[in-house]
Amino acid sequence: MSLAALRDDLVPFLAPYLPSNDVSAKERPFITLTYAQSLDSRISAAPGVRTAISHSETKTMTHYLRYHHDGILIGSRTALADDPGLNCKFNDEFEKSPRPIILDLSQKWRFQGSQMYTLYKQGRGKPPIVVVRGAPTLRENDVDYLIFSQNERYIDFEILFSRLEAEFGLHSVMVEGGAFVINELLARGDLVDSLVITIGSVFLGKNGVEVSPANSLELKDIDWWNGTRDAIMCARFLNPKIV
Amino acid sequence: MSLAALRDDLVPFLAPYLPSNDVSAKERPFITLTYAQSLDSRISAAPGVRTAISHSETKTMTHYLRYHHDGILIGSRTALADDPGLNCKFNDEFEKSPRPIILDLSQKWRFQGSQMYTLYKQGRGKPPIVVVRGAPTLRENDVDYLIFSQNERYIDFEILFSRLEAEFGLHSVMVEGGAFVINELLARGDLVDSLVITIGSVFLGKNGVEVSPANSLELKDIDWWNGTRDAIMCARFLNPKIV
Ligand SMILES: NC(=O)c1ccc[n+]([C@@H]2O[C@H](COP(=O)([O-])OP(=O)(O)OC[C@H]3O[C@@H](n4cnc5c(N)ncnc54)[C@H](OP(=O)(O)O)[C@@H]3O)[C@@H](O)[C@H]2O)c1
Ligand SMILES: NC(=O)c1ccc[n+]([C@@H]2O[C@H](COP(=O)([O-])OP(=O)(O)OC[C@H]3O[C@@H](n4cnc5c(N)ncnc54)[C@H](OP(=O)(O)O)[C@@H]3O)[C@@H](O)[C@H]2O)c1
Repeated sequence: MSLAALRDDLVPFLAPYLPSNDVSAKERPFITLTYAQSLDSRISAAPGVRTAISHSETKTMTHYLRYHHDGILIGSRTALADDPGLNCKFNDEFEKSPRPIILDLSQKWRFQGSQMYTLYKQGRGKPPIVVVRGAPTLRENDVDYLIFSQNERYIDFEILFSRLEAEFGLHSVMVEGGAFVINELLARGDLVDSLVITIGSVFLGKNGVEVSPANSLELKDIDWWNGTRDAIMCARFLNPKIV
Repeated sequence: MSLAALRDDLVPFLAPYLPSNDVSAKERPFITLTYAQSLDSRISAAPGVRTAISHSETKTMTHYLRYHHDGILIGSRTALADDPGLNCKFNDEFEKSPRPIILDLSQKWRFQGSQMYTLYKQGRGKPPIVVVRGAPTLRENDVDYLIFSQNERYIDFEILFSRLEAEFGLHSVMVEGGAFVINELLARGDLVDSLVITIGSVFLGKNGVEVSPANSLELKDIDWWNGTRDAIMCARFLNPKIV
């Protein structure tokens, strides 16, 4: 299924927030945090329920962002619940698909049988990098494993990002979710170069999966775009503190 | 302190959502639900903490809305925590101030000593209608009491609104908060004629006072406006159901 055309005005709107080479000196990739939320800051209607929030025109925008990134990172629960493709369908330029990166320390997710696998076999997507704790219990073909020590319950994003740059040459990574990953990364605004949030004009309600950081956060370089039903906010963090 | 000027483009943007006379046939006022939230759907940083969310230009918008309404309703906890003035400062046309309506069934709030009282005494605001349960234990000068039966723990908004029309001649009421009142009214979308939400580009974090209805809700007639830092979404409810 091909995408709706990209709205013309999204190109200049997004341009200032797309990956630049500035951060490479810092020895980590350019990081974009991006997701679609409801008015009440839910990214799905209930845990594990894949929920359509964004309009077709903002969905195209996501693929345009993927076109501009080397990697795309998600948490294990999103991989398991949504079985996302994570490829780039923008202009059908599948070779511009980012490398999927799955935070799956206890190796619950399988590449084989996933949508990512199907797309890869069809030449429409790249194989994933799976972040695991200790030597992988199962090694799947075509998967790269990024191995952390057995002692680490949670991975420090700073170390993770540096290793993605050093070991896989990824100069830009977009983080797409889910809520757990987003909330963690909001607490590490110092690592985030651009924030791109789509707001769908819907309420998902109390039982939805919520994005809200542990502490309040201020933004700068704020710009808004209006679509047919959605709005997009782009920004950067003001004085991010490591909490 | 006078307000910043109203941004020109807000006038045509808001026009379709302002009170009309259509609902008078229905024997209740035109109801506008309006509030300012953070990206993570918080309306204050912590319970009882008055929090600046909106930019001066969206603050002026609120006074422009007040200019177009006969009444403005808030819950007791907002009255106690924020001591709001609730008058209309738009073009200093104080005579266009709406009547404050305070949902204060157990009469914890006092008019005397409040900011509303000061503004009223200065001829810059109207005196309130206080919604109480049973005969008021204390009758303050210049306050009107709207008395509900002793048996009612929570007031049905449909009855409340009808009585505001029938007994006080209010043809339009804006509901400004707080979270408890907003969440209740979101569950009664059938009574809401316009929804006007300001979204400030900030995260208030997990400990903030949250707006999120019990169930998911869809909207129609959606339109967005972009300010310097904030966005405003106007909409109406699609197929509101009484939950
Ligand atoms: N609207 C959108 O834009 C959007 C996008 C993506 C997802 N979603 C929704 O989000 C929901 C899933 O979100 P979720 O919050 O449940 O889960 P999630 O964030 O997708 O995954 C959380 C898991 O990722 C692993 N993880 C995260 N941070 C880690 C770290 N620093 N170190 C090691 N492991 C880490 C942990 O896995 P282990 O527990 O296995 O160790 C953790 O339990 C789904 O309903 C999905 O539909 C929405
Ligand atoms: N950003 C904004 O736009 C905005 C606007 C307004 C307020 N706020 C914030 O919101 C917070 C206060 O919100 P809140 O949720 O704590 O309280 P609230 O909604 O202001 O007040 C709740 C109280 O109102 C009364 N009430 C509400 N619905 C009722 C009904 N149907 N029948 C009878 N009584 C009813 C009850 O009073 P009793 O318990 O006394 O019976 C209830 O406890 C404050 O922090 C304030 O700063 C923000």
